[in-house]
Amino acid sequence: MDIASLVSAEACQQADREDPLAPRRAQFNLPEDLSYLVGHSLGPSTPAALDRLDTTAHSAWKQGLIRSWNEAGWIDLAQSVGEKIAKLISAQKGEVIVCDSVSTNLFKLAAAALPLAKSQTLIVEEDEFPTDQYIAEGLARMSGADLIRAPQGEGLVQLEKAGGVLMKSVVSYRTASVTNIAEAEKMAAASDGLIVWDLSHATGVLALDMAPAKLATGCTYKYLNGGPGAPAFIYARQDIANSLNTPLPGWMGHKSPFAFSSQYTPADGVDRFANGTPPILSLTALDGALNVFEGIDLADLEHKATRLGDLCLHLAGQIGLATSSPDIGQRRGGHVTLHHEHGYPLMQALIAKGIVGDFRAPDAIRFGFSPLYVQYRDVWRAMHVLRHLLDTGEWDQPAFHARTKVT
Amino acid sequence: MDIASLVSAEACQQADREDPLAPRRAQFNLPEDLSYLVGHSLGPSTPAALDRLDTTAHSAWKQGLIRSWNEAGWIDLAQSVGEKIAKLISAQKGEVIVCDSVSTNLFKLAAAALPLAKSQTLIVEEDEFPTDQYIAEGLARMSGADLIRAPQGEGLVQLEKAGGVLMKSVVSYRTASVTNIAEAEKMAAASDGLIVWDLSHATGVLALDMAPAKLATGCTYKYLNGGPGAPAFIYARQDIANSLNTPLPGWMGHKSPFAFSSQYTPADGVDRFANGTPPILSLTALDGALNVFEGIDLADLEHKATRLGDLCLHLAGQIGLATSSPDIGQRRGGHVTLHHEHGYPLMQALIAKGIVGDFRAPDAIRFGFSPLYVQYRDVWRAMHVLRHLLDTGEWDQPAFHARTKVT
Repeated sequence: MDIASLVSAEACQQADREDPLAPRRAQFNLPEDLSYLVGHSLGPSTPAALDRLDTTAHSAWKQGLIRSWNEAGWIDLAQSVGEKIAKLISAQKGEVIVCDSVSTNLFKLAAAALPLAKSQTLIVEEDEFPTDQYIAEGLARMSGADLIRAPQGEGLVQLEKAGGVLMKSVVSYRTASVTNIAEAEKMAAASDGLIVWDLSHATGVLALDMAPAKLATGCTYKYLNGGPGAPAFIYARQDIANSLNTPLPGWMGHKSPFAFSSQYTPADGVDRFANGTPPILSLTALDGALNVFEGIDLADLEHKATRLGDLCLHLAGQIGLATSSPDIGQRRGGHVTLHHEHGYPLMQALIAKGIVGDFRAPDAIRFGFSPLYVQYRDVWRAMHVLRHLLDTGEWDQPAFHARTKVT
Repeated sequence: MDIASLVSAEACQQADREDPLAPRRAQFNLPEDLSYLVGHSLGPSTPAALDRLDTTAHSAWKQGLIRSWNEAGWIDLAQSVGEKIAKLISAQKGEVIVCDSVSTNLFKLAAAALPLAKSQTLIVEEDEFPTDQYIAEGLARMSGADLIRAPQGEGLVQLEKAGGVLMKSVVSYRTASVTNIAEAEKMAAASDGLIVWDLSHATGVLALDMAPAKLATGCTYKYLNGGPGAPAFIYARQDIANSLNTPLPGWMGHKSPFAFSSQYTPADGVDRFANGTPPILSLTALDGALNVFEGIDLADLEHKATRLGDLCLHLAGQIGLATSSPDIGQRRGGHVTLHHEHGYPLMQALIAKGIVGDFRAPDAIRFGFSPLYVQYRDVWRAMHVLRHLLDTGEWDQPAFHARTKVT
């Protein structure tokens, strides 16, 4: 199927009929007439996630009360949910645990990595997601490490020069450009440096293979559909995990938490990063949410996301909209970023017509193509309506200019 | 009412009829025949908590999707739930925020306090809750601060000597002994030291007045009934909060998170401790759970908890069981700790008869008296059954010796 052949709504509907992932959409709570193109920010719910949550709340907590720590398996959830995520990043069983937020996990991993690096230097690029930059700053202040704010795309060059620890997103939240993990790890190894990967915009949409990587964290409420603010995960490769000291040795990361010992003994491997008691309600929703990935080939996931993004770029080009995302045919994360000086009201007008993307100042319109529920017809419709709004000027209404707290 | 007059089940039932807090029990999901004496570990659910959670999951997330960050007020929940908790610790509006776990918050607060203290010394007592000890260790390693492990009850003495930062529970998880906050803060001020209070076993059961205190964190899944692993809270007094640098400056603690600035500017006051995206599902359950405290006088709360504990100690004395908790008439947290060499199987036998407490090695039996739902008759029944088990030896069965992962 050539992207350029998708020249009509009918052609896109035909592409949906031929799409092997199309049946998965029925596993999401999404109305037929909604084009939900913001899975890079908050994934939709699934009946499986809500059922799992309902059971936890109304059965395990309400009826089982405290005995559910044993009988409902709450005590092992951080590991068992981690095992499901491991499959989505081609990690081994026992290399992933669910805990805390991405922000906290970036801190834990970078702090644990510093003593293993050649130099006490933290490196972060100046177009990284803000939390990565702020955490690098907080950690540098506290640990005494030097902080290098590298220009966009130059983090690896700095790592080669300085050794140290680079905090780096695999997929840029701004542009969806992708960094090659295996190549980057080779460069890091050559300089005795380490990389802490942020997989937030990558997991659930790219055919990730973490085997060459040592350390990573990622978000579960975007493409993994875990629910608002669902806890994040940590990946630590088996051959390195036992050398890591977490700066946040909360009791759940103890080898025997219920011995209530005064002496801290870290749990084996990645489990030492478990920290405090995890938010079980949010964690079980995530557990249920991950079921929709059962039996999925990661290559199919990435292939479809790329095709949807290609189609978006193809149609956006016809309207004359510029992009900062990797072009058609290049590797790209699950979203596409277009630019228009009136991006904010344009996005509000799109949302009013059932096409949900988001806006990032000053002029970026982002559409996310979560491959398990976004259809070719959604992309067609989004670009068709966008063209209509631009042609008619319908976006230029006071209601669409009103700013909300969260954009 | 004299505790010694509660000499029968009938007298205890009479005490329940006269108890002004007794009607609150109907607001909990607890069967009539269950004596749930483990609220110091996991509080039970309430219809209000479950309803709030259901609405968040099935309406805000399922139907509202991403727009619920604005329309369902998710973005302000950390503050609005914090405001409810502020009332339970006699703090001001804007001094409490909900975020992370107690473990993470202890780290954040102690790290933020160190630069304000006279000396770079961390102090923790060796019978503190383990997570406090482990976090002190992790923070000392990372910050280069000296770590003093003070003998039981000598943390304040060490603080007077060394200056520095003391991490201290208001209520001991082992014995329920209470530290006087106002007196301790005077001692700390005299030595230019700071105290980070752990309110985990105190909030929701003591008439806390945090005005003399500067920094605290606490758990919400015990006496606040927020649900398993519900997020913790941070208290930072207004006159000090703006002097604090959090070591975990996640993006939600930025003054304008949605400006996506590369430059970190802390939010005003305690809000700077917000860190990463909060687990909304768990957070809304907590929000609903706190409604049961509406209109409660904290003095009534503490009075009843103390009376229930006194009754337990009175009856335990009659059986000849030793306690490590403050005696009848002394100030005490919400639980009572009794000791018996066969504490583990005894507790399992009690649980089998509908009396739920917990066991801590080597020989501690703990009963928690959450004053909003525990009745005088529950205490009577617990001690009556305990006496029966001891008299008959019924506790000595293989099933009651079997160890579970979580005790």
